[in-house]
Amino acid sequence: MYAIGVDIGGTKIAVGVVDEGGTILAQVRRDTDADDVANIDRAIADAVTELVKEHEVGAIGLAAAGFVSPDRTAVTFAPNIAWRDYPLAQKVRELVDVDVPIVVENDANAAGWAEFRFGAGRDATDMLMLTVGTGLGGAVIVGGELVRGKWGVAAEVGHMRMVPGGHYCGCGHEGCWEQYASGSALVRDAQHAAVAQPGRAVRLLELAGGDPEELNGPQVTRAAQEGDELAVELLANLGRWIGEGAASVAALLDPELIVIGGGVGAAGELLLGPVRRGYESQLSALGHRPVAKIELAEHGNEAGIVGAADLARR
Amino acid sequence: MYAIGVDIGGTKIAVGVVDEGGTILAQVRRDTDADDVANIDRAIADAVTELVKEHEVGAIGLAAAGFVSPDRTAVTFAPNIAWRDYPLAQKVRELVDVDVPIVVENDANAAGWAEFRFGAGRDATDMLMLTVGTGLGGAVIVGGELVRGKWGVAAEVGHMRMVPGGHYCGCGHEGCWEQYASGSALVRDAQHAAVAQPGRAVRLLELAGGDPEELNGPQVTRAAQEGDELAVELLANLGRWIGEGAASVAALLDPELIVIGGGVGAAGELLLGPVRRGYESQLSALGHRPVAKIELAEHGNEAGIVGAADLARR
Amino acid sequence: MYAIGVDIGGTKIAVGVVDEGGTILAQVRRDTDADDVANIDRAIADAVTELVKEHEVGAIGLAAAGFVSPDRTAVTFAPNIAWRDYPLAQKVRELVDVDVPIVVENDANAAGWAEFRFGAGRDATDMLMLTVGTGLGGAVIVGGELVRGKWGVAAEVGHMRMVPGGHYCGCGHEGCWEQYASGSALVRDAQHAAVAQPGRAVRLLELAGGDPEELNGPQVTRAAQEGDELAVELLANLGRWIGEGAASVAALLDPELIVIGGGVGAAGELLLGPVRRGYESQLSALGHRPVAKIELAEHGNEAGIVGAADLARR
Amino acid sequence: MYAIGVDIGGTKIAVGVVDEGGTILAQVRRDTDADDVANIDRAIADAVTELVKEHEVGAIGLAAAGFVSPDRTAVTFAPNIAWRDYPLAQKVRELVDVDVPIVVENDANAAGWAEFRFGAGRDATDMLMLTVGTGLGGAVIVGGELVRGKWGVAAEVGHMRMVPGGHYCGCGHEGCWEQYASGSALVRDAQHAAVAQPGRAVRLLELAGGDPEELNGPQVTRAAQEGDELAVELLANLGRWIGEGAASVAALLDPELIVIGGGVGAAGELLLGPVRRGYESQLSALGHRPVAKIELAEHGNEAGIVGAADLARR
Repeated sequence: MYAIGVDIGGTKIAVGVVDEGGTILAQVRRDTDADDVANIDRAIADAVTELVKEHEVGAIGLAAAGFVSPDRTAVTFAPNIAWRDYPLAQKVRELVDVDVPIVVENDANAAGWAEFRFGAGRDATDMLMLTVGTGLGGAVIVGGELVRGKWGVAAEVGHMRMVPGGHYCGCGHEGCWEQYASGSALVRDAQHAAVAQPGRAVRLLELAGGDPEELNGPQVTRAAQEGDELAVELLANLGRWIGEGAASVAALLDPELIVIGGGVGAAGELLLGPVRRGYESQLSALGHRPVAKIELAEHGNEAGIVGAADLARR
Repeated sequence: MYAIGVDIGGTKIAVGVVDEGGTILAQVRRDTDADDVANIDRAIADAVTELVKEHEVGAIGLAAAGFVSPDRTAVTFAPNIAWRDYPLAQKVRELVDVDVPIVVENDANAAGWAEFRFGAGRDATDMLMLTVGTGLGGAVIVGGELVRGKWGVAAEVGHMRMVPGGHYCGCGHEGCWEQYASGSALVRDAQHAAVAQPGRAVRLLELAGGDPEELNGPQVTRAAQEGDELAVELLANLGRWIGEGAASVAALLDPELIVIGGGVGAAGELLLGPVRRGYESQLSALGHRPVAKIELAEHGNEAGIVGAADLARR
Repeated sequence: MYAIGVDIGGTKIAVGVVDEGGTILAQVRRDTDADDVANIDRAIADAVTELVKEHEVGAIGLAAAGFVSPDRTAVTFAPNIAWRDYPLAQKVRELVDVDVPIVVENDANAAGWAEFRFGAGRDATDMLMLTVGTGLGGAVIVGGELVRGKWGVAAEVGHMRMVPGGHYCGCGHEGCWEQYASGSALVRDAQHAAVAQPGRAVRLLELAGGDPEELNGPQVTRAAQEGDELAVELLANLGRWIGEGAASVAALLDPELIVIGGGVGAAGELLLGPVRRGYESQLSALGHRPVAKIELAEHGNEAGIVGAADLARR
Repeated sequence: MYAIGVDIGGTKIAVGVVDEGGTILAQVRRDTDADDVANIDRAIADAVTELVKEHEVGAIGLAAAGFVSPDRTAVTFAPNIAWRDYPLAQKVRELVDVDVPIVVENDANAAGWAEFRFGAGRDATDMLMLTVGTGLGGAVIVGGELVRGKWGVAAEVGHMRMVPGGHYCGCGHEGCWEQYASGSALVRDAQHAAVAQPGRAVRLLELAGGDPEELNGPQVTRAAQEGDELAVELLANLGRWIGEGAASVAALLDPELIVIGGGVGAAGELLLGPVRRGYESQLSALGHRPVAKIELAEHGNEAGIVGAADLARR
């Protein structure tokens, strides 16, 4: 059975028809306005209507960056889109002329599910997905099932606390994992190093055109690949935090596989090596248990479409 | 169907016949030797043989303090008993004359399951059990199912890291949750307070007969119940660490219920109040999600028997 | 002997004639431009010239917010004024027609010295001054002498590290004391609490006109004085960090007195109580040593003038 | 002028005649009993009496491991010897037939003073001495003067807090510097690593005869010198904590020199390199100030004798 997956971002949506093997057969995009939720509904409906002309689909999955109600019909809260207890599935249903199930999923869960079913996790049953981007998102698979939690808000991995009294987080707390293990953290640490240890940051500043404010993640990765000591250290530090935090999750869930997604994956072993060392250094009962594999995600930006579609048809 | 549950401790075993409502119909105990695993097998077989004379049972569950193999037949490692990749189920089977399934479960998982099925969690589907004793043990229930992990070693909650560079733990790491949230931590903090702030520890020292080394948890609880400021503060600190750590678990798993077991529960609201405040103070997205209930366990020492029996018959 | 003290701020200077008892006999102010250092020199010279017409002075002290050379003639670096290895004393000398010693002092040192000589520390020999303002500044008096350090940059108390991996600091490091013990930290913590625990921040938000960004320190103090629980907690937290950090300083320097300056002093006991409790709770060898007194500063904004003048004539 | 220095340990005393260049001209030792303070007085008197037969001395300095009264005549408290408000100078005076000043000094201060006057610090005016042994002791020199503090208990550097909620310390607090930067910490970390990461600890365990409890500091140093990765890492970690903590002291005192004493100095650059990197990585305003030199102590166990003698004659 084919299914449609919709990945709803802040300023655009991507909609695709996905077959049972996780392949996207057709895809369309629409621009949207984060403050105008009715506009988003219409954009989704419009794209779906276009795709169903050419493909017979049995389900529609909507991947949303927000908290999803346990019955998978509504978005209860979203940080970047003006949804508040918004019955998204019903709103879309009213605008499309297809009589198939429409379900809403959290976007990080959808992306993790795609990786689990059709990517690095295809042979696994217990997996942790960590998406290391602007923030740190994730998905948890236990016994082959996606963990949504009682109220649909599980897998907010980025807000596990790593350091009491640590870095401030936009959520209002301190020491959240995503403040240490995200692309933003990498850039911020690089900027601070440029202030605190200027002599070591020469190459990084050069790449940033002399302005620390202009530093970005790809520049750090590039400098590290050239062998710049500070850049290598910054990536190692990021990797260490990812791995050490994952060891805490492993104490709780004992996964066999940890998948690292997001743009920082471009750093390859410069990141993965430290992730694995950090993980082993903190893994409880090392030597008395197997060690989970840690791999890069195979899917990129389209994971949300694929996962949402696949979850909808289950 | 009746089932037998066996709770295997370091120096004794407790064996009971449990009905489908979680009631123990008959119970026997045997002394054992932690260094002589064959002796433990025989004690189990002996007790089982005695109980099946009077009760017809359909399954036997063995609750073991150690890592249990994913197929629930063996103990792969135990910290306090000389089991190493030990085929416990088969060993017991060879010694008993009953032809029913015999399964091995981790003891903390068994106790958590008893609480989930027949105790504070009877109405829940997603629950975290925290057993605050010498260490910090636990069990995780997701969607009505016990989470065992890929290799059977999930729910080692006590070894989630709470403080980088924090208290040493017997596991070889630093900052493990159980070093902040256990009865041992409570006693150790009380002892340190008696050194660092002697003027505030007068009542505690009095209860300990003048010797800080003799301080124990019930004395701290008693002093707190009398209104002793330091003791109240120590319990509040313990509660805070339980609650704050639970908030990190909630970011990952979104449970509806957190059950606190172990002897410290005797402190009642002096503990639970701070647990709840600590939990709310650190819960991600407070105000945009429901807040899990936090309750004391209803079962005491017999939870292992009940849970092992019930898990065996499923 | 009378002396002139000059307090050089980012946008204005305050200049006064100070007698030997620390009283300001006459005072003038001038607006300045932080980016135009020659303009600052002229403003100082102009004010000095005006004051010496009416008063006979024997020394001139210039209090500068920056690193001062060990010979007290130059500013080697300033964060907010465009001084870089700037021979400030000589520049001023060239513009004034008085032949008296001109010395440069760090402004926090000058303010601490005023407090030591003519304020809360008048009876002390070993004192720590903490100025809790936008940042955390300070001064150290050992054996009746101001500690300037080998290169003139001692008493940067705000950059002692309190939390490894803690809050980012403008200096490029993490966990600096001033990120926990300053008016800015108080406001930031209040803003974060309004996000993380909105239900408890009702009164604070009301005072801020509904906008967390508009929250300020005096509002927190006012709410605390009204009895608002969150505000009391925020001030207590600030006080605890001041006191706990001061205990680390006391392990090193064993002062008899700790003086708290800066605007937060307006909170009175709501701040001082927690400072004292935090100090005692962390003071090494409590019970085997006297406990330093902790008092509010007696001087306000004019301490820089008074201290600079007095240091110049010594 | 010659002076006698006495270094009073828990089970023995070492007594020497010291010339003005810091050279020990003659030395005797006596066994003592830490619980019998009169016995210690007699042993000191006996040794002094013996030495003054051959040498004319002008002062006697007693170096004691404890808190010394501000007037340098008494020990107010000692952790390992049964002194409580004990008038040590007077007690010794009553037993010896020499009419010269007798002063008491803290032993770490005496050792630091020897280093300042006749060792690595001979050209310095502002120096921090860190003695990395069983614990972490120290001495502070500001402007050429030893800092004793208001009540004689300054320079307890080992009890500055480095990690809130960190390692327990014998003083009753948590996170004290000496729990991270001492020979004991090195050994304990090695032992924990042997548990947490057994695969990496093969060589260390071999040197300890297979028993982690038998591991000691020289073994770690030896393994590191052989190139053992874990041992190198353990020494680097120790060095990092020494250096990072010293940067906090430098924020306060701006020393030109940091001297590292104690047995761990045997590790040479394997320790000093990480100390220096840790120091620079955390030094406030790096690039805008000179960086203190970090050197090994030149004196060994006899520093206490030399320093006590020299302080007595000042």
